[in-house]
Amino acid sequence: MAVITLLTDFGTRDGFVGVMKGVIWGIAPDAKIADLTHEISPQNIRQGAYLLGQSYSYFPAGSIHVMVVDPGVGTNRPGIAAKIDEMFFVAPDNGLITISFQRAVKKGDPVQIVQLDCKEYWLPAVSATFHGRDIFAPVAAHLARGVPITQLGTFVERPVLLDLPEPVNQAGIFEAEIILVDSFGNLITNFEESLLRDRKILQVKFQDLEIKSIAKTFANSPAGTLIAMFDSSKRLSICVVNGSAAQSTRAQVGDKVWLETGPI
Amino acid sequence: MAVITLLTDFGTRDGFVGVMKGVIWGIAPDAKIADLTHEISPQNIRQGAYLLGQSYSYFPAGSIHVMVVDPGVGTNRPGIAAKIDEMFFVAPDNGLITISFQRAVKKGDPVQIVQLDCKEYWLPAVSATFHGRDIFAPVAAHLARGVPITQLGTFVERPVLLDLPEPVNQAGIFEAEIILVDSFGNLITNFEESLLRDRKILQVKFQDLEIKSIAKTFANSPAGTLIAMFDSSKRLSICVVNGSAAQSTRAQVGDKVWLETGPI
Amino acid sequence: MAVITLLTDFGTRDGFVGVMKGVIWGIAPDAKIADLTHEISPQNIRQGAYLLGQSYSYFPAGSIHVMVVDPGVGTNRPGIAAKIDEMFFVAPDNGLITISFQRAVKKGDPVQIVQLDCKEYWLPAVSATFHGRDIFAPVAAHLARGVPITQLGTFVERPVLLDLPEPVNQAGIFEAEIILVDSFGNLITNFEESLLRDRKILQVKFQDLEIKSIAKTFANSPAGTLIAMFDSSKRLSICVVNGSAAQSTRAQVGDKVWLETGPI
Repeated sequence: MAVITLLTDFGTRDGFVGVMKGVIWGIAPDAKIADLTHEISPQNIRQGAYLLGQSYSYFPAGSIHVMVVDPGVGTNRPGIAAKIDEMFFVAPDNGLITISFQRAVKKGDPVQIVQLDCKEYWLPAVSATFHGRDIFAPVAAHLARGVPITQLGTFVERPVLLDLPEPVNQAGIFEAEIILVDSFGNLITNFEESLLRDRKILQVKFQDLEIKSIAKTFANSPAGTLIAMFDSSKRLSICVVNGSAAQSTRAQVGDKVWLETGPI
Repeated sequence: MAVITLLTDFGTRDGFVGVMKGVIWGIAPDAKIADLTHEISPQNIRQGAYLLGQSYSYFPAGSIHVMVVDPGVGTNRPGIAAKIDEMFFVAPDNGLITISFQRAVKKGDPVQIVQLDCKEYWLPAVSATFHGRDIFAPVAAHLARGVPITQLGTFVERPVLLDLPEPVNQAGIFEAEIILVDSFGNLITNFEESLLRDRKILQVKFQDLEIKSIAKTFANSPAGTLIAMFDSSKRLSICVVNGSAAQSTRAQVGDKVWLETGPI
Repeated sequence: MAVITLLTDFGTRDGFVGVMKGVIWGIAPDAKIADLTHEISPQNIRQGAYLLGQSYSYFPAGSIHVMVVDPGVGTNRPGIAAKIDEMFFVAPDNGLITISFQRAVKKGDPVQIVQLDCKEYWLPAVSATFHGRDIFAPVAAHLARGVPITQLGTFVERPVLLDLPEPVNQAGIFEAEIILVDSFGNLITNFEESLLRDRKILQVKFQDLEIKSIAKTFANSPAGTLIAMFDSSKRLSICVVNGSAAQSTRAQVGDKVWLETGPI
């Protein structure tokens, strides 16, 4: 039976996530459920999209990724279900699937997206504020039971996509941007290692700081050192060894970071 | 195999919840376990009762709801197991099951309650401080394996019940009360939509504020607006769009809210 | 299918724990996974060792305990897998398994430990910062599928062990030490009840406080009382009834506590 993952901004205090699991198991008793995170900042769709983007490919083929960061709940914004490569995604149509969709388009992978309009796969009563429970959880559970995605609604050509910033290359100097701050205070940029191709980083400039070398790991520098390194998702990150770069630099999502590169 | 839910005030830091799952799976290896919440305020039985009340009916019939908010642990307060409608509940006998019990009584549904006194369904050694691990988890696991509730202890006529406040109707003006503050800062009252019958709300008075209309959803008002709306459990709630009503009004559980109603 | 437990210092915000579950279920689809805690203080190996020590024996035989508190990730510190009594442990070789190892040695139980060096049981690409995902999760999943521990790597005689403080007995006065502060603010010492043998505690001295009797449970003393009691792991703890001893005494891990004992 399929794995269902849950990504929300609900927190874990009020029982909302537990209730979604109850709904899922009422329909698909053998589904395995993994919490991806419930600590997305309230209504931060972009953060949800990035976290999904760095996580979903580690789940087995056929997994169903449910995302509920949903400032438009109760309006006429539709919900969608998508089949991208071998994964399923269920979410409000607000950009949460941007990264997986764009990867598939780039690779030429098949994509199927439907707008959720077949109410027989929802709970009988739908509230105006909790579609995670009333629509997205039951739809995911029906997918887990093998209902074809095409039965869940009508075909959609193109989902809502976020305009995510990409690094800009000017004569070997890349202007990148902080896109996430993780719970350790590491500053994660949108610069992926693969962009280097046959070049190497000479230095990283950030605020009035210059970082001269790229660390391979945290453990080689003394505590408190500001380092740049590629994180476990191969994105350039700025970190303080045994500390919080977010705290010591007061940097925020959206801040620019410059990478000077040269031939290897 | 049954679903077991866990609701506690243990937090998730110290491993207590994990240990309860270990005990459950040692007895009922195929049980599915959902965390409902572990962030009940320490010893806040009333909050636990409300959260259970809004959640349990979304789980499949046969689910076993374990609640451990237990200021009397180690004294002679008994534990109980209850079968109410098609659900099971396992908890200290301190009022945690009040809402499900009262609903069943109101509907005339059958209720079976036993005091947990058959020690062969407990762990062999019972501590004075962690009955969640030593009594409630193993009892729930034995229920999941199919042990009849009547084997777990002796019949109890009436469990301990909380005296939960009900809205008072004086000539169409309802005096309601804030019963929960959720993690978004929404103020949830004890006024359920069904109490309106053939009337509608004209205005909601609260502190020195007057809210003139009931919103259908968050998304129709500008950020920062104070609104009243029925939440996903159909209780009147006071909310700030994209904000925290608890923070901006400093309201607390127990504060009164008045609803002026008139004919539709 | 085996239970896999997860103990980390990752927090739950960034999706790292969810990703480990995805990796596990990709290899061992029927594994049951329990979060033990993800709130170990960053890089606090000792806290991880203590929490594991008080928890693992409540899981069924054959359970696989994965611990990732890993300041040395990316260096040449090895990972290990251990079979101790009927349990499995997977972790960096940094002392996290100290308590289970020492218990087994004391009891003369068989212990098998291997250094994880067979890369065919890892993810194909191993990052320098996230061995929880790339090495420990897949190794645990292969153990769950029945791969013998001896296939995971080469035999290790003795793992890295922490030097955990033991109470010192001087003429019936034990000098103990606070080893954990739990999320309720209880101060947990390294003095286990079994050390008393045929003696009893006359008084507990701590800071300039004298606690004259050992409480059996929280519920027998008025709120605010400072009490000493044996906790659910049978360690002497200093607690404030309905309050936080950590807050009211400002005590910390490492502080000394003296127990005066006498014949029963």
